[in-house]
Amino acid sequence: MTLNGGNAASGLATGMEMFALAERLYLINRSITGTGVRETLKIISEIIPGLSMHEVPTGTKAFDWTVPDEWNIATATITDPDGGRVVDFANHNLHVMSYSIPIDAQMSLEELQPHLHSLPDQPDKIPYVTSYYKRDWGFCLTHRTRESLLHGTYHVKIDSTIEPGSLTYGELVIPGEHPDEILLSANVCHPSMANNELSGPVVTTFLARWLASQPRKYTYRIIFVPETIGALVYLSRHLQHLQSHVDAGFVLTCCGDAAEFSFMPSRTGGTYADRLSRRVLSKLQPGFREYSFLQRGSDERQYCSPLADLPVVSIMRSKYHEYPEYHTSNDDLSFITPGALQQSLEVYVQVLLAAESNCIPLTTVVGEPHLSKYGLYPATGGQINQSKVSMTLDLLAFSDGQTDLLEISDRTGHDVLDLRRLTNHLAALGLLQFEHGFHT
Amino acid sequence: MTLNGGNAASGLATGMEMFALAERLYLINRSITGTGVRETLKIISEIIPGLSMHEVPTGTKAFDWTVPDEWNIATATITDPDGGRVVDFANHNLHVMSYSIPIDAQMSLEELQPHLHSLPDQPDKIPYVTSYYKRDWGFCLTHRTRESLLHGTYHVKIDSTIEPGSLTYGELVIPGEHPDEILLSANVCHPSMANNELSGPVVTTFLARWLASQPRKYTYRIIFVPETIGALVYLSRHLQHLQSHVDAGFVLTCCGDAAEFSFMPSRTGGTYADRLSRRVLSKLQPGFREYSFLQRGSDERQYCSPLADLPVVSIMRSKYHEYPEYHTSNDDLSFITPGALQQSLEVYVQVLLAAESNCIPLTTVVGEPHLSKYGLYPATGGQINQSKVSMTLDLLAFSDGQTDLLEISDRTGHDVLDLRRLTNHLAALGLLQFEHGFHT
Amino acid sequence: MTLNGGNAASGLATGMEMFALAERLYLINRSITGTGVRETLKIISEIIPGLSMHEVPTGTKAFDWTVPDEWNIATATITDPDGGRVVDFANHNLHVMSYSIPIDAQMSLEELQPHLHSLPDQPDKIPYVTSYYKRDWGFCLTHRTRESLLHGTYHVKIDSTIEPGSLTYGELVIPGEHPDEILLSANVCHPSMANNELSGPVVTTFLARWLASQPRKYTYRIIFVPETIGALVYLSRHLQHLQSHVDAGFVLTCCGDAAEFSFMPSRTGGTYADRLSRRVLSKLQPGFREYSFLQRGSDERQYCSPLADLPVVSIMRSKYHEYPEYHTSNDDLSFITPGALQQSLEVYVQVLLAAESNCIPLTTVVGEPHLSKYGLYPATGGQINQSKVSMTLDLLAFSDGQTDLLEISDRTGHDVLDLRRLTNHLAALGLLQFEHGFHT
Repeated sequence: MTLNGGNAASGLATGMEMFALAERLYLINRSITGTGVRETLKIISEIIPGLSMHEVPTGTKAFDWTVPDEWNIATATITDPDGGRVVDFANHNLHVMSYSIPIDAQMSLEELQPHLHSLPDQPDKIPYVTSYYKRDWGFCLTHRTRESLLHGTYHVKIDSTIEPGSLTYGELVIPGEHPDEILLSANVCHPSMANNELSGPVVTTFLARWLASQPRKYTYRIIFVPETIGALVYLSRHLQHLQSHVDAGFVLTCCGDAAEFSFMPSRTGGTYADRLSRRVLSKLQPGFREYSFLQRGSDERQYCSPLADLPVVSIMRSKYHEYPEYHTSNDDLSFITPGALQQSLEVYVQVLLAAESNCIPLTTVVGEPHLSKYGLYPATGGQINQSKVSMTLDLLAFSDGQTDLLEISDRTGHDVLDLRRLTNHLAALGLLQFEHGFHT
Repeated sequence: MTLNGGNAASGLATGMEMFALAERLYLINRSITGTGVRETLKIISEIIPGLSMHEVPTGTKAFDWTVPDEWNIATATITDPDGGRVVDFANHNLHVMSYSIPIDAQMSLEELQPHLHSLPDQPDKIPYVTSYYKRDWGFCLTHRTRESLLHGTYHVKIDSTIEPGSLTYGELVIPGEHPDEILLSANVCHPSMANNELSGPVVTTFLARWLASQPRKYTYRIIFVPETIGALVYLSRHLQHLQSHVDAGFVLTCCGDAAEFSFMPSRTGGTYADRLSRRVLSKLQPGFREYSFLQRGSDERQYCSPLADLPVVSIMRSKYHEYPEYHTSNDDLSFITPGALQQSLEVYVQVLLAAESNCIPLTTVVGEPHLSKYGLYPATGGQINQSKVSMTLDLLAFSDGQTDLLEISDRTGHDVLDLRRLTNHLAALGLLQFEHGFHT
Repeated sequence: MTLNGGNAASGLATGMEMFALAERLYLINRSITGTGVRETLKIISEIIPGLSMHEVPTGTKAFDWTVPDEWNIATATITDPDGGRVVDFANHNLHVMSYSIPIDAQMSLEELQPHLHSLPDQPDKIPYVTSYYKRDWGFCLTHRTRESLLHGTYHVKIDSTIEPGSLTYGELVIPGEHPDEILLSANVCHPSMANNELSGPVVTTFLARWLASQPRKYTYRIIFVPETIGALVYLSRHLQHLQSHVDAGFVLTCCGDAAEFSFMPSRTGGTYADRLSRRVLSKLQPGFREYSFLQRGSDERQYCSPLADLPVVSIMRSKYHEYPEYHTSNDDLSFITPGALQQSLEVYVQVLLAAESNCIPLTTVVGEPHLSKYGLYPATGGQINQSKVSMTLDLLAFSDGQTDLLEISDRTGHDVLDLRRLTNHLAALGLLQFEHGFHT
């Protein structure tokens, strides 16, 4: 798979550059609030300087939700009866359940057990567990370690704070020629996991950098939000604007591993975002896997909800919940690759180029134009196979003022970008006219 | 298959109770008019006391048809040359062609033959034959008996009357909260056959008794009519009312034998009755057989005719014309079972509960509600598989004010009644609102 | 396959008669202009005397095209260094590239080569090559001959003229009861080839003769035009009339060989012409091959273009470009057969009879009529299988005033002409009414 839009070459990141950002962000402890999110956004803003950071105070309402207290953590350990540190947050961010309240206590193994999380079926992985809205504490560890714990008295210590503060999100609006928007949304709330979720913000960052370097029909709204509460906060602040401006939106997630591409459609399944994605995936990876919206699990849950009803989809590789490393310590930097990140960036570039290129052409001529006059058709006839010189004729045949290039591409198999270049050429010759065809 | 609507348990008949009614009605000689119909309706009215009986005089017009003279019969015999009673109506109601005119004559076997009906391919069955509108007489007998008839003079005697009288039908309207109606129609014109047709009126009777004991959104119109002429008479008296009130209708027929369920759609195939039936059958018996409307053969022929155009379907077991016992003496009480009658009752109960439960929900919240606040979602996250805790989220995701529970059930696989219970719960929490969504 | 419209028998040509016309036209040298077209139309007008010939002067604009100078040719030869006539137009019309300019020159084989056309992969066939709009000259020959050419000086002589004149087309309008039209279009520009293209004008000619002998609802517009430029000229003169009158149109081409029937749909694929063709082909040749509009290649390119948007399709046998003899000297009279021509005529007759017979019936009776009153249903019941006596009941069941006989035929499997005969009968009985249902 290669990028066939020549104009896309400039400013497009390499896989190594993308992977380096993932490495730099990996060890930061993120949650839905706290310093980890701010630190992450600051690093991202080194690459896309226009990124603005927004702080939303604890207690702010977002529809049915409320921004919770801010959580931060310094250290956390479990010391066993022999004085050994059997679990230490310093070794892995996943060792502490996100939003664990502070504790400093001695207790028996039996008392400790209800606060331990492990995966009996995957005994060497540390699970990722959160408790954002119920005050509790917990440690996550491999099941192998858990089973080796001896009876006796344990010292449990979590040095964390949960107190009024704010939720942080990042936003970058890259204006285009037209007020219609394409929304790109990624999560910045996952600690120390690579595919879900550093691949999303990493690809989004470099997609944003590339967009800023390109001529643009569309205005691009790029947001980095904590999952669920962040998306809802953002929706609550911008709902009317988004509903009246967003032509297509994408949740970028799980796009760093080596698996084939897969697709999560919108709730209705027929939005412009669905059409753009299916067209590009059909071309790049025929027979790509399309999930059911019933298998959704990221912020399309909020964006596609009935009263928001935004046209939002996801192009992923291994989908959340569908790979064994998901939400465990094995979703680490070895699970993602520079090449996969780069390909994912390129797929999204293709999708955005399709959106930028799409238009609704209308032929100006009754019948076929006399193409050989324009050097567009062989002058010597009789042995010409129509289906071999067909792109020009096919484009003209479907340029009825009602069919956009996406659909012409669906029907003819010709690439959208190729069709757009040809549209420009035929328009310059006066053989057709077109308009962009925004969707709001 | 079990009934999962707990509220349905009260008042629902047992299979034995249903079978006992079939036994009680079996020996009555019914036709499209006559005392047999009245006697049948009288017995049914012991179970559903509100049933009213209507007498429609001979000569009454019903669209292109006219109510015929009333037919009654006392005795009928064929005595052979040796004085043996080779055919005796006292032995089986099927022995006489329905609407046979009276006769008392001596004739040769050759003269008799054109008036005999038998089934050469099924030599041990007495066929069911009628001649409602052409004055004639006839006897039906096994082909084996017919072939044993000796040459000589036969004495043929039918003590019947065909004279002005009336056509009788039964009607029970069980009012509900709303004037929109569901129509249930069964035939009471078949003599001494069990699946076609005592199963239909038997299941209809106990469905009516159960309905009368339940809270009801819908008004139920339940009719017991002679096939074709009775349905047309009823249509001619109530056409406008039916067209403006009936949301869904069902012809109950052939639902007593042990075969799997099958489905006869309406003429257009997309009415509310079709949707209700397909939803319930898809759940109870995936891959159920759906016939083509070209294979129709009961009163949907009248109800679905273009100028009536009512939304009427049938859920059957072995469809008429499709089982070898059909319209013969072998369609007897041994061909139907208590268990099959009860299951058929339960399937129709499911269909009606689906109609009663169906509604069009609309979420009141932008985004997903904060379900863990209401105890509807685990408070500890990270290891939750969306698709395993999905009914609440799925219902909310499709509660867009345009999609009814039937369609949400189609799309999500969740049961309609489960969805309705959850709808009530979420509405009580203020998370959605809904309206019933009647169809006329 | 036989023609089941009894009224069609009179006036329908035999295959031998059709083949004889092909033989008579075969040796004439046709191009998009010139005496060959006129001579061809004159012979056709012996069979359909009403055919009018129209001359369109050189230089006339037709949308993006201009009628070129007229081309005529007397002789053309290549004489080899030894004085042998290695290529002689007198032997085969295909030997000269159509629209070759005059030349009389000596040249080396090397100089000659760029003007020679042959088929290396099919070394025994003379290809068909044209250069209508680029002034050039050329010879076509078998590759075997070409490879045998010796080095030395060749004498090349083409005695042709390209000068102002006119383009000629033929037109016959056969008026019917109604101003709505069916368009039949065939090409008269191909020299000395049989399937593509003499089969088209030959079948069209005899279809026109038959139409003139029949009672007609529709007005038929039959045109014989040079491909592309002729169709465009015709469109440019009649566009508005055609758009407001043509219900269905057919390009008759490639219908003389022995292959099975195939189908080229219109651009949108759902016009009345598509529906008529698919219905007839489904009946006559279930599983017939339907091409994609992407594989188009005849005058539907013009008729179906977006700003013309006429409902035009083709029923063919071996489609252009799809058989090895296409556009070579092997597409000769041995490639077509009298039987195939006759069957093609009959298929088009069936399509036109379907159009003539089609109507939108509306029952006048609520419920089913009492068919036995009219002798349309057995008087003795009980053993009647609805699906075996179904045509009358099926027709009535779908006579809802919105469904035409084509669709009723699609849904029931009954033949359109049978349905129409029954419609007439039921209408005479007062059981239904109907209107023709023209499409413009």
